[in-house]
Amino acid sequence: MKLLFIGDIVGVPGCQYVREVLPGLLRAFNPDLVVANAENAANGKGLTRKAAEQLFDAGVEILTLGNHAWDHKDIFTFIDEDRRIIRPANYPEGTPGSGYTVCTVRSRPVLIVNLMGRTFMQSLDCPFREVDRILALHPHIHHIVVDMHAETTSEKLAMGWYLDGRASLVVGTHTHVPTADERVLPGGTAYITDVGMVGPSDGILGIDRETVIRRFITQLPSKFAVANGPRQFCAVLVELDDATGRARSIERVYIAEQTPAPG
Amino acid sequence: MKLLFIGDIVGVPGCQYVREVLPGLLRAFNPDLVVANAENAANGKGLTRKAAEQLFDAGVEILTLGNHAWDHKDIFTFIDEDRRIIRPANYPEGTPGSGYTVCTVRSRPVLIVNLMGRTFMQSLDCPFREVDRILALHPHIHHIVVDMHAETTSEKLAMGWYLDGRASLVVGTHTHVPTADERVLPGGTAYITDVGMVGPSDGILGIDRETVIRRFITQLPSKFAVANGPRQFCAVLVELDDATGRARSIERVYIAEQTPAPG
Amino acid sequence: MKLLFIGDIVGVPGCQYVREVLPGLLRAFNPDLVVANAENAANGKGLTRKAAEQLFDAGVEILTLGNHAWDHKDIFTFIDEDRRIIRPANYPEGTPGSGYTVCTVRSRPVLIVNLMGRTFMQSLDCPFREVDRILALHPHIHHIVVDMHAETTSEKLAMGWYLDGRASLVVGTHTHVPTADERVLPGGTAYITDVGMVGPSDGILGIDRETVIRRFITQLPSKFAVANGPRQFCAVLVELDDATGRARSIERVYIAEQTPAPG
Amino acid sequence: MKLLFIGDIVGVPGCQYVREVLPGLLRAFNPDLVVANAENAANGKGLTRKAAEQLFDAGVEILTLGNHAWDHKDIFTFIDEDRRIIRPANYPEGTPGSGYTVCTVRSRPVLIVNLMGRTFMQSLDCPFREVDRILALHPHIHHIVVDMHAETTSEKLAMGWYLDGRASLVVGTHTHVPTADERVLPGGTAYITDVGMVGPSDGILGIDRETVIRRFITQLPSKFAVANGPRQFCAVLVELDDATGRARSIERVYIAEQTPAPG
Ligand SMILES: [Fe+2]
Ligand SMILES: [Fe+2]
Ligand SMILES: [Fe+2]
Ligand SMILES: [Fe+2]
Ligand SMILES: [Fe+2]
Ligand SMILES: [Fe+2]
Ligand SMILES: [Fe+2]
Ligand SMILES: [Fe+2]
Repeated sequence: MKLLFIGDIVGVPGCQYVREVLPGLLRAFNPDLVVANAENAANGKGLTRKAAEQLFDAGVEILTLGNHAWDHKDIFTFIDEDRRIIRPANYPEGTPGSGYTVCTVRSRPVLIVNLMGRTFMQSLDCPFREVDRILALHPHIHHIVVDMHAETTSEKLAMGWYLDGRASLVVGTHTHVPTADERVLPGGTAYITDVGMVGPSDGILGIDRETVIRRFITQLPSKFAVANGPRQFCAVLVELDDATGRARSIERVYIAEQTPAPG
Repeated sequence: MKLLFIGDIVGVPGCQYVREVLPGLLRAFNPDLVVANAENAANGKGLTRKAAEQLFDAGVEILTLGNHAWDHKDIFTFIDEDRRIIRPANYPEGTPGSGYTVCTVRSRPVLIVNLMGRTFMQSLDCPFREVDRILALHPHIHHIVVDMHAETTSEKLAMGWYLDGRASLVVGTHTHVPTADERVLPGGTAYITDVGMVGPSDGILGIDRETVIRRFITQLPSKFAVANGPRQFCAVLVELDDATGRARSIERVYIAEQTPAPG
Repeated sequence: MKLLFIGDIVGVPGCQYVREVLPGLLRAFNPDLVVANAENAANGKGLTRKAAEQLFDAGVEILTLGNHAWDHKDIFTFIDEDRRIIRPANYPEGTPGSGYTVCTVRSRPVLIVNLMGRTFMQSLDCPFREVDRILALHPHIHHIVVDMHAETTSEKLAMGWYLDGRASLVVGTHTHVPTADERVLPGGTAYITDVGMVGPSDGILGIDRETVIRRFITQLPSKFAVANGPRQFCAVLVELDDATGRARSIERVYIAEQTPAPG
Repeated sequence: MKLLFIGDIVGVPGCQYVREVLPGLLRAFNPDLVVANAENAANGKGLTRKAAEQLFDAGVEILTLGNHAWDHKDIFTFIDEDRRIIRPANYPEGTPGSGYTVCTVRSRPVLIVNLMGRTFMQSLDCPFREVDRILALHPHIHHIVVDMHAETTSEKLAMGWYLDGRASLVVGTHTHVPTADERVLPGGTAYITDVGMVGPSDGILGIDRETVIRRFITQLPSKFAVANGPRQFCAVLVELDDATGRARSIERVYIAEQTPAPG
């Protein structure tokens, strides 16, 4: 079983680039399941119905979210109905939407879980206990994908090792920069600290870089806008054993438009 | 001119692994200058005279530091004397040691600057203004290496773009996980968000992983110890134009001991 | 029913001052129950058996804790046995000790609960949900005291209003400075944002002020020591209706040694 | 010389209450200078021209600001022109407006300085060094008022003690809850950790309390609105020696509308 996990898709340029790039990838790699983090799909902050539909049309099957899940109010109108969209599971009980979903891939159930870290982020429930709880609800599912949306490398690595041998894949999202530490951990869990993002390559995390730099320098508030220019696509391709759910391999997928060469 | 920049070296395993690996790398790549971040060299926290000497003996020529610079009090006994060791320049005036140093490489002056981010870190002076000030002091130096020790990808990317065309190399350190975004920016500055670390591969940031996981789960204090087991070495190799200081290329260097294959 | 709640007791000077001051207060006000926050009793960080015994000997009956609960390892040897000592209830399940205790005062059960805020603090469970859970376990207790140990005024005020009409007293602790906002909320809950501390008046939060100032200015690590000199005692005296548990009044108690007059 | 310093004025209810209450206070106490923190005057976030004029009309002479200074864009149209309005001085060089102002009171120059803390706040320049710099520019002024807008009690206390003997008055603002620690420090500086706010008494920091509580419990974003209902006025009245600028006394001023008594 092959999975493609796509990192945070940023704004219109990100959604558009998924539509341009994904069909070719599907032909080339023929993944059995495509999951993507969509917390920044709506103009950098949140997810609209329209952006979600575009991503589904392009071939994404499951969307995960993160701290920006609620930034566009549109989400509240559809997150409770659409089983293909999940938000971090460790938001407190009563939060709209679900923190995990199960779909059928090659006749087998696959559990996809979205978690969020707490260090330098919001005050959520413990993601470690939450994932234990969710896994206990699905003792017969062996193919398990976890999106750990977190700020620090330590909290993501802790989740990877915590789930080693229990999940098929643990990917980090949120920092928008792909890490080069993809590996299959000793217990059979594929892991990467951050998948990276899909969106403008020459912005900062997909945002117009002049605005971001000015904010660091002035410490004054400023409106962030999604950047323009060449785009990049970051994902991981993971191969799982059909019977056991253990990962056989994980590799980074990186596609980018030509950027101007240094002068 | 070729530079090798080595990421955060963690504890005895990290220092030892530098000694094992670096001689072969020097033969293979023949870099003209070797710089390393040593904020974790002394048992994970700080830098001792002894650890510094080991790294110099192994072939490192300049050591940078970070938020852990002051964790071992030994540092105060030698940081004012040794021009080969620098600490983040944006610590306030009067801080022991220097935030930059100049050395001669292939008959040309090379300026090495250490900076620290502020987001989720200590309350230091503005690293953007500080680097402007330092560059203005050295208008005739064209080969400039900047270690931006920071937590967030956005603050490191902001520094990379801010210095594009003004520095030869901007590397991020601190998160201990190598990123896969190395590139030469349009203005000629080589950039990577994080170089990664040198130390135990199967810990969390080089620390015993059971302790780290337990701390996330219990939220109780616990003593961190450097991990054992197989080790990794993360660096970047950068080639600069001798005349202009512009970067021609940057590539990641990753060496690791054999880890047990997934069962 | 009269309660005396004493704020964070800092180090030897704090414990000693409680012993000097409390007997007179007991004679003067004749409270039916004396509770104190003891997270800083052991030299500023944590609680030792010896410090706890001194406070019990002085007339304190129940000790609450906070983020410093675990700073002295002694706590692990007695917190599970001693029902008079509680730690924040929203530490995760499995944490040593208990987050609440029940004692009998004037033939009535009194429930004392310790909670901790999350803003700018550790990643604990939700204190609002946790207190709901604890109150639901004790539907027949009407005299309820809550120590909300938190950094921000907003999180403490939120807890006060959240429990208005359900608790008899909600006090804030942790910031060591008494606030002047004590009142009985409309539903009958006595409230104060921070009780203040017991310890050296001319330090900063009870700590030697030169060290604290130096740390702000240098951003270098430094060992904090409990200050010397004149001492202060901060508490609140609350009167509850015996039948309903509603608060009738809350007043601040402030006692201090003579400090040198301004020159 | 008598000074009245009014804490953070929140929204329309706060501005309106200043207009109702201040004239009587001016008659009663006859202060020579009235300063107020106005960072929340414009609907809870920022300062408009209109709100500033209302406060000046009511008798306030100098307005200080804080982290919310820039929340309403109106500020950028007048902060550079109006010497009666200052923003935290430790914003970086080039920030609109000024961090201090000098006015004449009873034929003597009075320096008013606005500073902001850094702990749990933005990454500004060091407030301790900044105030040293400003004081050094005005060696002949002995009447000096400092508004230290900060989150933690320790950073505010550190500033109070740091300036003891050098400033006439150091007040904390930002947490909106008045503290009960007003005193004249040994060197002659009047100090209080927080003056408190002017605005709705039954909100949370002046904001509708249901919204604030819901945000803590759900961790979802929500729009904050200024609360309705009875209002409070928090200030300090300070008496300074005309010749030396040393403080003779500091006392809290608290005025509030009738709130419903507990049932
Ligand atoms: Fe994102
Ligand atoms: Fe995110
Ligand atoms: Fe670091
Ligand atoms: Fe490090
Ligand atoms: Fe505390
Ligand atoms: Fe405390
Ligand atoms: Fe503020
Ligand atoms: Fe405010």
